[in-house]
Amino acid sequence: MKSAAIITIGDELLYGSVVDTNAAYIGQRLTETGIEPVCSMTVGDEGTRIGRALEILCRQADAVLVTGGLGPTHDDVTKTVIADAIGQDLVFHPEIMDTVERMFTQRGMVMPESNRIQAYMPRHAEVLDNPVGTAPGFLVRHHDAAVFVMPGVPREMKKMLNEQVLPRLKDQGAGRVILHRWIRTTGIGESNLSQIIGDVIDAAEDVKIASLPQETGVNLRLTAEGRSGEEARRRIEAVESRMVARAGEHIYGVDDDTLEEVVGRLLREAGATVAVAESCTGGLVASRLTDVPGSSDYLLEGIVSYSNAAKMARLEVPVGTIDRHGAVSEETAAAMAQGIRHTSDATYGLSTTGVAGPGGGTPEKPVGLVFLGLASADGVETRRLMLGPDRQVNKTRAALAALNLLRQALTRAAGTNRIPGNRNPQAT
Amino acid sequence: MKSAAIITIGDELLYGSVVDTNAAYIGQRLTETGIEPVCSMTVGDEGTRIGRALEILCRQADAVLVTGGLGPTHDDVTKTVIADAIGQDLVFHPEIMDTVERMFTQRGMVMPESNRIQAYMPRHAEVLDNPVGTAPGFLVRHHDAAVFVMPGVPREMKKMLNEQVLPRLKDQGAGRVILHRWIRTTGIGESNLSQIIGDVIDAAEDVKIASLPQETGVNLRLTAEGRSGEEARRRIEAVESRMVARAGEHIYGVDDDTLEEVVGRLLREAGATVAVAESCTGGLVASRLTDVPGSSDYLLEGIVSYSNAAKMARLEVPVGTIDRHGAVSEETAAAMAQGIRHTSDATYGLSTTGVAGPGGGTPEKPVGLVFLGLASADGVETRRLMLGPDRQVNKTRAALAALNLLRQALTRAAGTNRIPGNRNPQAT
Repeated sequence: MKSAAIITIGDELLYGSVVDTNAAYIGQRLTETGIEPVCSMTVGDEGTRIGRALEILCRQADAVLVTGGLGPTHDDVTKTVIADAIGQDLVFHPEIMDTVERMFTQRGMVMPESNRIQAYMPRHAEVLDNPVGTAPGFLVRHHDAAVFVMPGVPREMKKMLNEQVLPRLKDQGAGRVILHRWIRTTGIGESNLSQIIGDVIDAAEDVKIASLPQETGVNLRLTAEGRSGEEARRRIEAVESRMVARAGEHIYGVDDDTLEEVVGRLLREAGATVAVAESCTGGLVASRLTDVPGSSDYLLEGIVSYSNAAKMARLEVPVGTIDRHGAVSEETAAAMAQGIRHTSDATYGLSTTGVAGPGGGTPEKPVGLVFLGLASADGVETRRLMLGPDRQVNKTRAALAALNLLRQALTRAAGTNRIPGNRNPQAT
Repeated sequence: MKSAAIITIGDELLYGSVVDTNAAYIGQRLTETGIEPVCSMTVGDEGTRIGRALEILCRQADAVLVTGGLGPTHDDVTKTVIADAIGQDLVFHPEIMDTVERMFTQRGMVMPESNRIQAYMPRHAEVLDNPVGTAPGFLVRHHDAAVFVMPGVPREMKKMLNEQVLPRLKDQGAGRVILHRWIRTTGIGESNLSQIIGDVIDAAEDVKIASLPQETGVNLRLTAEGRSGEEARRRIEAVESRMVARAGEHIYGVDDDTLEEVVGRLLREAGATVAVAESCTGGLVASRLTDVPGSSDYLLEGIVSYSNAAKMARLEVPVGTIDRHGAVSEETAAAMAQGIRHTSDATYGLSTTGVAGPGGGTPEKPVGLVFLGLASADGVETRRLMLGPDRQVNKTRAALAALNLLRQALTRAAGTNRIPGNRNPQAT
């Protein structure tokens, strides 16, 4: 497999004023094209540092992809630095100048003199057109590596990468196909998950598996190589189905799925509706559900009942339930779920109540204690969670656990344990 | 000035499945602390590449900050690689093991055996505690550089960076004082803001001002240097007060303030309460308000009334109002705000209704059209917003505009235009 390294240039990236999305995009497109990204480096608009990065990376990869520092201002030094490094002078290209001038004229503007610099290129460079901006890119060779230099503006970079850089790299490519699949889980920690599916991972010799814990849950990334897409796909799907058989309860989706999208799809397929009564999640369950376009078809309403008065008035929670068991209790969670289901006439009533923290904990009801309730035609079920000390993390985890409780009920009702909307692994 | 380099580790970063926000955050905090970031490098979970990056960067900077690959799974190789590079073996720390085990016990879980690895550290490493996760960090020296190794989970990394890494780097720092202050605005674009305060910026010769547009609004970063903290502070505060005088309507806070915290502080100071009726924001206003600890003191309840039935039943919106003007109208926004204020007996009733998109738009009521309502003892006021095509951006912007509407009313009622809870600029 061919390899590539990435250099992104710009003070704003290094100083963190702007998050570097170019490196991620290039890494993704390289991987999809069957080229291995080996490393990515960010340097400021400073000649010596740029030159040093180029020297290092041209010895580590077959190709080096550079973005940024091609503009007309004084801090755009990329072209001069690269010309120096490869020992070529910059020569003027009248046809580039014409193109740039025409761009300004078409917008009813006069080209500033500073833009003349964009018509200069290293003597033996191959010019890469930029149809959507004024800075053309170029291709040179250094230490046996192909060096592709692109503008830093994401829209211009993406077009040049996809239309000019990747086709050139692919022409010299190897021919093997790499496929990826993300398996998304929630409500289980990384180490517990790896205990449940550890032997599946160990047995999956021809599929590489990486585990990535995020706030929403642990995501597993499956990667397989093959002589054909069919072969790579078979390898991934064999491992995937073993994982679903083992840990389906925790697996809510694949690739770009979000839990709220999956729940929405299941509600829609079942022709069901939901209404939400939230205490400790404070509106986050409703907000996640309404992040999905068209969610008004199945979300009837949400109530954030922070006060006990609201719990009683809006949700018909009996005063005796709160008095006897407290607002944070299995009984109140159940009554809230039944109350919102009844008053809104929804198929499912979903509730959360808990101590989000950081204050408000007691020895019996510590910070992080959360109860969930789910009411349906079959009755009401509850869950008890013991989360941590951080308020926002608790809100997020409790909201996801509530959505996952609804997902599990919908999956059971549908009589399957498949991932809804199952699609092919991402082909490259 | 001292210099630092950054290494972020993870296949998911290199392959672009996840955008590297850690590097940006570290770059920003280094700059704010007066340490120069010289370059940042991303490598996959692969020993040889990690080792090579370490060799290169330890010769380029006074400190190297490493994140990622400290977890308990087989692809977490950072610790082994670094121990090899510096020629130290890994030794077991029983006190780390105890802490990690206690974290699991507190959540009612048994620690999986795989977590034992987290108690091993290079022999002469200084351990950096991780109070919010199970992977401690550590500090070693290599080729005269201080190497700080932190977990990759952003929340854990940030806490370790701010509380343990930066203070250690600062102790060895220089003599001049640099102070920073963020001025946070919302509801106004970058170019309009710079028209309003352009001459303040031009006149501020001894204060450096950077403008950073984000989804929540435009943030302005003021930086001043001085021989003493007092001198730098005076410079910043002079510019800050000129900005507040000019654009106070749009400035909601400073530094780490969030709009919901500021609103919460103002409600608390006024002894006032709020209840929220949301349509197009789908629970996001309530969710943001409840992100603030103690918000149950002033948020009485929230209603997500996606259906017209819910608007009428829960919020007393007259059927004639919806029939005549539609659910997305100034009149319905006003009725929702008055309805939630009345039924919940709150000081303020806040409402949102609009077309979040991407579907559901018409020529008269296009996607992005949003009405806000705010009811109080003084009557009801409304706002009309014309936002864009993206659903999630629209939800966020509408929620922030609603909170800002409440903030402006509270500020007027308090008879001041100051930023509540004004504090000293961040010293470095």
